Amino acid sequence: MGATAGIVVIGDEILSGKFGDENARFLIAELRSLGVELRRISVIPDDLDDIADTVPRFARRFDHVFTSGGVGPTHDDLTMEGIARGFGTRVVRVPELEARVRAYWGDKLAPANLRLAEVPAGAQLLYGDPVWPVVAYQNVYILPGVPGLFRRKFQDIRERFRAAPLVLARLYARGDEGVLAPHLDAVVAAHPGAKLGSYPRFEEQDFRVLVTVEGVDPAAVGAAVDDLAARLGELVVRVEPAA
Amino acid sequence: MGATAGIVVIGDEILSGKFGDENARFLIAELRSLGVELRRISVIPDDLDDIADTVPRFARRFDHVFTSGGVGPTHDDLTMEGIARGFGTRVVRVPELEARVRAYWGDKLAPANLRLAEVPAGAQLLYGDPVWPVVAYQNVYILPGVPGLFRRKFQDIRERFRAAPLVLARLYARGDEGVLAPHLDAVVAAHPGAKLGSYPRFEEQDFRVLVTVEGVDPAAVGAAVDDLAARLGELVVRVEPAA
Repeated sequence: MGATAGIVVIGDEILSGKFGDENARFLIAELRSLGVELRRISVIPDDLDDIADTVPRFARRFDHVFTSGGVGPTHDDLTMEGIARGFGTRVVRVPELEARVRAYWGDKLAPANLRLAEVPAGAQLLYGDPVWPVVAYQNVYILPGVPGLFRRKFQDIRERFRAAPLVLARLYARGDEGVLAPHLDAVVAAHPGAKLGSYPRFEEQDFRVLVTVEGVDPAAVGAAVDDLAARLGELVVRVEPAA
Repeated sequence: MGATAGIVVIGDEILSGKFGDENARFLIAELRSLGVELRRISVIPDDLDDIADTVPRFARRFDHVFTSGGVGPTHDDLTMEGIARGFGTRVVRVPELEARVRAYWGDKLAPANLRLAEVPAGAQLLYGDPVWPVVAYQNVYILPGVPGLFRRKFQDIRERFRAAPLVLARLYARGDEGVLAPHLDAVVAAHPGAKLGSYPRFEEQDFRVLVTVEGVDPAAVGAAVDDLAARLGELVVRVEPAA
């Protein structure tokens, strides 16, 4: 596989059910289409220690890390400070951002708005949108929690992450997962270039198990699907070819 | 606050976008209505080491841990083994479960189905449904990934987790978050029994910021809302009383 990624959603409002998550869901689909392997999503509270502990851990394990939320001007916006603390640095006010904040709010500027100009020392500013950059610290991309803004800012930087696309095939089978299991084991062993998933479903009319086969090499995926279909014989309901 | 909880969703299929998460979303609402404070959700791959590392870590930090997925008979069902490894024990076949598996499948039994009778040594079997128990290891409740089954099994055990309900009030305000920030800070400092969240919205007609106020003590929540409303004066659009 190619590049890996992790997502840290920072927000009491998700954990307490006040808002449903939209940002991780959006990013799952985006990363998939970019060919990046998403390896972990964690939803954590607006808590300084938890942010400081979680984000650097993700940054060591994955190629790219995306955070959502906690970047506004109020008491519960702790992401910048948490990330700074986690990486052993501090938050600094950046003149380039301060100028943009002052220009945007003009004489309506409240002191708290200047928190939007504060980032971990050493952070990079990535301009897609010409006015408001995305703040990145090392391999951590710090995105806002408001879904519309989250999406827009990710769009500004998405092409940096493009990797080899994944190929996916689906095989729908009748029969119990227990009957399929030894055949799946055999195909997994014989086709290291393909990754298999097995998902039983009890509410479908025409199949009992969806088997997914995926990988970066279309030939390897095709060979694994053919092998599995041959082994399962009349248990196969249909195969949806690699997209 | 009362009892805390964490959720570990185990499933490549969520991370790769083949299925959307339904189980964490369901459990967020259930835990909320039970008065349990959800502190973390992690979505991790079908990976033995990751399961073994993640689940015991959750079990140490939270009162209750719920896992979703990875409990079937196929090669990608690694939850029981991962949890056993993480807690330094091993998987054993339980005669009580083996009898149920054999009775259910009868002469259609495939050897792989017997994996459903294997649990970490020392696990408890919790009967809500009279036939298929929920498997628990210490404070970890091991639930299946198929959404219909996940919900049914959680319903079987949900009353064990009932705690003090939370009270929530919402204050909708016009005006910029930066203007609200010092008032929120003051209310947070003066009302330790209430937890405030501030959520800007840019697509609403009549308000710019939703402030949530919550806690276990209705009087403390009410006092905090009244204090905030008095401070904000005409910036208040409306208050939705504590439910």
